[in-house]
Amino acid sequence: MISDATNAPKAVVLYSGGLDSTTVLAMARESGYNCYCLTFSYGQRQAIEVERARALANIMGAADHLVLHLDLDKIGGSALTTATAVPKGRSLNEMESGIPVTYVPGRNTIFLAYAMSWAEVLGAHDIFIGVNAVDFSGYPDCRPDFLAAFQQVANLGTRAGREGSNPFTVHAPLLRLSKKEIIETGLRLKVDYGRTHSCYDPDQAGRACGRCDACQLRLKGFQEAGIMDPAPYAPR
Amino acid sequence: MISDATNAPKAVVLYSGGLDSTTVLAMARESGYNCYCLTFSYGQRQAIEVERARALANIMGAADHLVLHLDLDKIGGSALTTATAVPKGRSLNEMESGIPVTYVPGRNTIFLAYAMSWAEVLGAHDIFIGVNAVDFSGYPDCRPDFLAAFQQVANLGTRAGREGSNPFTVHAPLLRLSKKEIIETGLRLKVDYGRTHSCYDPDQAGRACGRCDACQLRLKGFQEAGIMDPAPYAPR
Repeated sequence: MISDATNAPKAVVLYSGGLDSTTVLAMARESGYNCYCLTFSYGQRQAIEVERARALANIMGAADHLVLHLDLDKIGGSALTTATAVPKGRSLNEMESGIPVTYVPGRNTIFLAYAMSWAEVLGAHDIFIGVNAVDFSGYPDCRPDFLAAFQQVANLGTRAGREGSNPFTVHAPLLRLSKKEIIETGLRLKVDYGRTHSCYDPDQAGRACGRCDACQLRLKGFQEAGIMDPAPYAPR
Repeated sequence: MISDATNAPKAVVLYSGGLDSTTVLAMARESGYNCYCLTFSYGQRQAIEVERARALANIMGAADHLVLHLDLDKIGGSALTTATAVPKGRSLNEMESGIPVTYVPGRNTIFLAYAMSWAEVLGAHDIFIGVNAVDFSGYPDCRPDFLAAFQQVANLGTRAGREGSNPFTVHAPLLRLSKKEIIETGLRLKVDYGRTHSCYDPDQAGRACGRCDACQLRLKGFQEAGIMDPAPYAPR
């Protein structure tokens, strides 16, 4: 456990409880930030993610954890928020061709907008997001130019950005890491990956399916890192 | 009533039911758009606004109207979402000095992010927002450079923006109009301002207070346009 200096800078960490964002939380803690974790609840499939995220953020010494419900299912447009089936058993080539049905239109923009809002209220100038441009499966809002554009929005669209001498920074420390490198980083920082959750379509007990894009990328990362994924998978 | 051509372009209109956004809706309708109105419900004070917005959008021929609840009260930081008192009876000089307590951190960024998300699902490329840089009372997210930065986010952070030949446009047709000019525009377009609602602190019957910043700017606009505001005000 990293102890919090009371004068340590605050950061808002977009935090799903998954492998990537949990690694980001560990990296932000190691960098000395008091971390304010922001988790979103949306759709029906991911409810178990929220409870696990809450427990894990606490274990990792988050200063606070805010869960916001988003009405993304009313907007639709994604297999993650509608009744569309999550694809299973796709090859890496298939994942890399185009934007998948699990893409939630504008999701990271909405997430970052809320993070920016909370950061302004907290007096934080740093936002951490676990997007990744190497292993990513075709999402337009996981790319460096998008993140740079959002940082510009944060600096122009807030009192803190307009009036402050210390503008916002959007940190994406996983951006250029492979899944293998992400896992190796997290293991060095003692992340308990058995408690992290990546699956788009877990069973009722919260066990991962092992076959959706997120599971496949995760399993490939552990394989390349040469260790077993400690998370629970449904038998098949 | 403007009839909808089935091949008319779609637009998402950020719509509160207030004077400004209702004028924007009329302008977007006149420009030939099929309008998809997006209204947000947040905080406790503005609930009546949502019901009036729903009724007025219908009267004005909106193609659809989506109301999303936002958890902004959990983030706090504003008199509009917390128990902080809304200031009353401020002079125009006071309104123009700094950012007021009614500023909701990041609000327009959150609003635009949802509008962008819905636009992508609808296949719309146009977003209308009723921000105003002349009469505005100090909000950082009502300025042209902010809107331009958000448009860049929309074009980089969506499938439609990345893959499409027709990128997003954020329209802010009131940006450089005075309140007087906005009202004159709306009257020319037959807006029923008696049904529009601007007050930050209405009474239980939904009557405007007449003394908050929004009421004062509105009343000044009607005075300068030389007509009575037809909206109901609480007796004082």
